[in-house]
Amino acid sequence: MAKVVWDTDVSSLTRVRDEVDAVLEDFVSAREQEAPGPEMAPLFATARRLLLSNGKRLRSLLCVVGWRAAGAPGDHHAVLRVAAALELFQTFALVHDDVMDDSDVRRGGPSAHRTLAAEYTRAGGQRGRAEVHGRAAAVLLGDLLLVWSDTMLADAGLGGRAQARVLPLVDSMRTELVYGQYLDLLSTGRISQDVAAALRVARYKTGKYTVERPLHLGVCLADGGPQLLRMCTDFAIPLGEAFQLRDDLLGVFGDPAQTGKPVGDDIREGKATVLLALAFQSAPRAERRLLRALFGSTNLSGEDIGRVRSILETTGAREGVETMISSRRDATLAALEAADLPPDVTHMLRQIVWMATERIV
Amino acid sequence: MAKVVWDTDVSSLTRVRDEVDAVLEDFVSAREQEAPGPEMAPLFATARRLLLSNGKRLRSLLCVVGWRAAGAPGDHHAVLRVAAALELFQTFALVHDDVMDDSDVRRGGPSAHRTLAAEYTRAGGQRGRAEVHGRAAAVLLGDLLLVWSDTMLADAGLGGRAQARVLPLVDSMRTELVYGQYLDLLSTGRISQDVAAALRVARYKTGKYTVERPLHLGVCLADGGPQLLRMCTDFAIPLGEAFQLRDDLLGVFGDPAQTGKPVGDDIREGKATVLLALAFQSAPRAERRLLRALFGSTNLSGEDIGRVRSILETTGAREGVETMISSRRDATLAALEAADLPPDVTHMLRQIVWMATERIV
Repeated sequence: MAKVVWDTDVSSLTRVRDEVDAVLEDFVSAREQEAPGPEMAPLFATARRLLLSNGKRLRSLLCVVGWRAAGAPGDHHAVLRVAAALELFQTFALVHDDVMDDSDVRRGGPSAHRTLAAEYTRAGGQRGRAEVHGRAAAVLLGDLLLVWSDTMLADAGLGGRAQARVLPLVDSMRTELVYGQYLDLLSTGRISQDVAAALRVARYKTGKYTVERPLHLGVCLADGGPQLLRMCTDFAIPLGEAFQLRDDLLGVFGDPAQTGKPVGDDIREGKATVLLALAFQSAPRAERRLLRALFGSTNLSGEDIGRVRSILETTGAREGVETMISSRRDATLAALEAADLPPDVTHMLRQIVWMATERIV
Repeated sequence: MAKVVWDTDVSSLTRVRDEVDAVLEDFVSAREQEAPGPEMAPLFATARRLLLSNGKRLRSLLCVVGWRAAGAPGDHHAVLRVAAALELFQTFALVHDDVMDDSDVRRGGPSAHRTLAAEYTRAGGQRGRAEVHGRAAAVLLGDLLLVWSDTMLADAGLGGRAQARVLPLVDSMRTELVYGQYLDLLSTGRISQDVAAALRVARYKTGKYTVERPLHLGVCLADGGPQLLRMCTDFAIPLGEAFQLRDDLLGVFGDPAQTGKPVGDDIREGKATVLLALAFQSAPRAERRLLRALFGSTNLSGEDIGRVRSILETTGAREGVETMISSRRDATLAALEAADLPPDVTHMLRQIVWMATERIV
């Protein structure tokens, strides 16, 4: 295949997204052809909707840009497949995360277990079993997506040497996610003022996995050197944290139409976020008591959410998190300037920085 | 490394088990060294217990014997790791299966989600969250085991050509298991007299994955030819079915001390087994009504189990399943005779046939 040179204009990111989507669509269609029967249709429909419903494709973009930063050798067949494997992995993580947190909504529609429960009922499933069925089926769907992400990698046509560079990174990324999720589970339901602990969870659960690992994967695929990898780390670590901090804010103050998640899920699920730790640190006694009462409560009213928001504002926690995001974004942009990468790569990374920290583009 | 020639006496199977155990133990210890902190201890303790508590290692044995049938080229470093990857995969499947079925017991001890819930409570976890936590943590533990099984394969030191032979088989095995489990979920809670449907679920869920795929993996690892693969299929398909049918019987008539599972789980969970389909087919009206009432009932008494057993006896279902096992075992042994394999391989396979269908050795 001829080497494809991408445009360096703003449409590049959109183009990468479209190409990754096409790879995913082809892959799922091929898997569906091999499936044992029409009974599998709900699994495939749910997989397709979650995989292809306008994700940001942040990890794909970072992987492709990392590969370009290292010189983009060869055609882009392999890098698009490595990127698509990251999206399959991310969707696996979301499906299991929603089962674990019992979340109703994902990417603006029902979560996988809710979809599969509804489908079971629609198809005449046994009364009273729908919820249990939905949960079990979503565990299986997550398993399938995890297996697929691996199949996608195996079919990426990496040679033996590229494999030896890429697979250990994939392995680290996967285990880090599981460890981070477990740390998250252990801290769930315990309100705390420990900002450092909340940051540690965020780093494992999201930080490295969302920014550093995808960038490194792209760089290693293109056989980039240790200096470039170090530069990517300097860029990625603060960006990953900023991404997670923005997520904390959007979870409480975001527009559900934009985030695709209902407001207040973190409070409802009792997630020990940095935002909440900051608020709890400096809240007066009565507000602390209120936070403690609402934290982890499954039936929060709109009024309750309003009260929590107000505490997050008056304690300065919201502003504090915004400041933490800004300082991390500054560190990321400074690392980017210092790196002296080709202008088109720098341009794309700068777009990604704003996308990850402000959720624009 | 020098080529290791195994004994051909009865102790061979034991020796393979011990060697696979050692590989697993080393692997888990190495992973534990890299884990982010002491908080991970419950995950590792649970993984270790389930992985190393006297499983039959049926899949490992079949993989190693398949490799020997194809001439056992090179040393046995790689085949032991492929076998260990099968055990990690099998343990992943059990952990998620128990979450899905809400089973209390596995391999004679508490299931993973029960263990992790108890550990959470012991460590001072939030009251009322233990069950939800245990389930979520077991989903993560299963994910981790699935990732590990893949890491084990990647570290098996297969060359590019062995990889190209082995990985597609692994991929098929993994997706078949998920599809089989989903078929199983769909049929759960629906009592039926459809023996063919129950056999189809068993074939996907257990049959191919327990016998044929592990044998083929061993053969392909050793670059065995299409004729040997076909012979393995002839041997494996009836054996896989017989294995699952024995499982059905042991679930109702087995000794919990031997099976490591409480009696009657299949009835309690509403599993559409061949055994039950046969009984339902020929039960008189009153017995049918009773079966329908007890099937899928979460609080079965010992007396209820006794009633179900009695119906399974009087309808001839138990005997029918024994006959199905025998005829499949005959087919398997006939395939083995026809294959004309080296005597030590034939000897080991014959032992495995009895182990899988009678659960002896």
